[in-house]
Amino acid sequence: MMKAIGFKQSLPIEESNSFIAFETEKPKPDGFDLLVKIAAISVNPVDYKIRANAAIDVVLDTPKIIGWDAAGTVEAVGSKASKFKVGDQVYYAGDITRSGSNAEYQLIDERIVGHKPKNLSLAESAALPLTTLTAYESLFDRIKINPEKDKGKTILIIAGAGGVGSIAIQIAKKMANLKVIATASRPDSIQWCKDLGADYVINHYNLKAELEKIGHSEVNYILDFVDLKGYWETAAEIIKPQGHIVTITGSADPLHLNLLKEKSVSFSYEFMYTRSMFTTDDMEEQHKILNEIAELMDRGTLKPTLTTTLEGFTVENLKKAHQMQESGKTIGKTVILF
Amino acid sequence: MMKAIGFKQSLPIEESNSFIAFETEKPKPDGFDLLVKIAAISVNPVDYKIRANAAIDVVLDTPKIIGWDAAGTVEAVGSKASKFKVGDQVYYAGDITRSGSNAEYQLIDERIVGHKPKNLSLAESAALPLTTLTAYESLFDRIKINPEKDKGKTILIIAGAGGVGSIAIQIAKKMANLKVIATASRPDSIQWCKDLGADYVINHYNLKAELEKIGHSEVNYILDFVDLKGYWETAAEIIKPQGHIVTITGSADPLHLNLLKEKSVSFSYEFMYTRSMFTTDDMEEQHKILNEIAELMDRGTLKPTLTTTLEGFTVENLKKAHQMQESGKTIGKTVILF
Repeated sequence: MMKAIGFKQSLPIEESNSFIAFETEKPKPDGFDLLVKIAAISVNPVDYKIRANAAIDVVLDTPKIIGWDAAGTVEAVGSKASKFKVGDQVYYAGDITRSGSNAEYQLIDERIVGHKPKNLSLAESAALPLTTLTAYESLFDRIKINPEKDKGKTILIIAGAGGVGSIAIQIAKKMANLKVIATASRPDSIQWCKDLGADYVINHYNLKAELEKIGHSEVNYILDFVDLKGYWETAAEIIKPQGHIVTITGSADPLHLNLLKEKSVSFSYEFMYTRSMFTTDDMEEQHKILNEIAELMDRGTLKPTLTTTLEGFTVENLKKAHQMQESGKTIGKTVILF
Repeated sequence: MMKAIGFKQSLPIEESNSFIAFETEKPKPDGFDLLVKIAAISVNPVDYKIRANAAIDVVLDTPKIIGWDAAGTVEAVGSKASKFKVGDQVYYAGDITRSGSNAEYQLIDERIVGHKPKNLSLAESAALPLTTLTAYESLFDRIKINPEKDKGKTILIIAGAGGVGSIAIQIAKKMANLKVIATASRPDSIQWCKDLGADYVINHYNLKAELEKIGHSEVNYILDFVDLKGYWETAAEIIKPQGHIVTITGSADPLHLNLLKEKSVSFSYEFMYTRSMFTTDDMEEQHKILNEIAELMDRGTLKPTLTTTLEGFTVENLKKAHQMQESGKTIGKTVILF
């Protein structure tokens, strides 16, 4: 048996049953799966969005286990697994169609698992996978940036100090060779973005005027990590001809695509779960990306994004981590260390 | 002086003044401009769309000269022009913000001009530029296809037998190494697509079922050359995870972008005029593309798309060419030979 934390109903985080601890069967690995003993997890906005929507007006029979970011140790491997052996330290984001990482043990397909960065702590490692894969895929799989050809082009990262923004600034700067303009509005979040390597930090209110102030009235690329609908018209206005807009958010309402026409602009959704959800031919890219990032972390080219560590895998800490995410004001990443 | 054909009012093509012939000053080249003596022009859907919208409820003082596809001979060069000399045979699409090719002479920035394919006639050459640039940019500048890495991926070309479809099938097959599925619905247009190298030709009605019939229920890429709005939901359904949709049409109404989210799909507008309209840093790419295409035409790797030649630069022939475009049923390209 193992301990897990989940929910049977979508409830406000303040309510006592918004999360419950329970005992459940420890799973066994088969096929490409690894069984990982989890040592640390992190929380992302997707967590509270799913918690708030997965069980509205119903009570689930068994609690739903969410959470997609973990670091830990391989305890057993499936028959087809060949990339890892028992005892290996790993880190991964996971698969939204399967049970999450808010548990002592988890099954995970090795094709989306990376070797943990050697020089980083388990907590620092658990903070990385989901945001790193999101930022990397946005730049290299969606926009398809060529670091030599596109060197020096400009990218606007909306919400630079948040979890994904914190690693996106670094990957855009250090791996994609771009000039990075991040948005942030408080003194501590502005400083955080600068420390991570942003060339400019501007306020997200009145983006157009802010960009003009720094002499970049238009940008080649935009990463929206906050609100596609809210930024749509501004994005269409400040994007350069042949530019590319990537979003991880979305819009419940339809949007005017024609705003992109005259400038031949491209637009992509980045959803980190796509590869595992559809078992795409190139699913193993996530394994490679996580290994590449681990190397760059070990060399010090990239810096950890962890800012807050909560000690102990408890309902209280998980609630606290969700509350922090829901505030929308966290800087960097929050981790729960088991 | 020179002869030109233009319009002062947006009128149905049947009306006597829908086009008028007139005499106007022969222009002089400066800067990067070439003065080209035009020998052949072709007509594209953009022509009748502009004719129908540029002068509604007004009468222009001087007739508007449209047309963006020509082949001819350089008669004079501007002070900064260095790629061409007097007497060179050239072909080009042009710049939507300037006077068009429905004239005996035209000024054109050399950075968007190519050397005419040596083994093709002037009429065959005039048929190519606008559609070729559109198809090439769609595949290599918007989707950013890598012919080695993406070899064998599938592309659906909606309206395969039309002007841009006819060259897109060939570029997708011969230059991008893709498996090409084109849509066409009449026996002659189906045969035309097959002759150009399409691996499959399917009917555009009930696309999903047609794709299933040929064993490709989903495709990696879609080029929409007909109606973005009409195909939007179907496109979102039949596109593969991480796929890419390119359109040259558009939608007056807003569209649900969220349909692309789960599959991390990308979307681009391709507007051949973007580079010249905004004088982008890479504007000269169009010069390079046209030269590359000329070589492939000369080697026989690509085939001309010309199907109809109207002899004589007359109002009657221009009206006829517009009428054919407006029917939406033309196969390949229509050219007017001066």
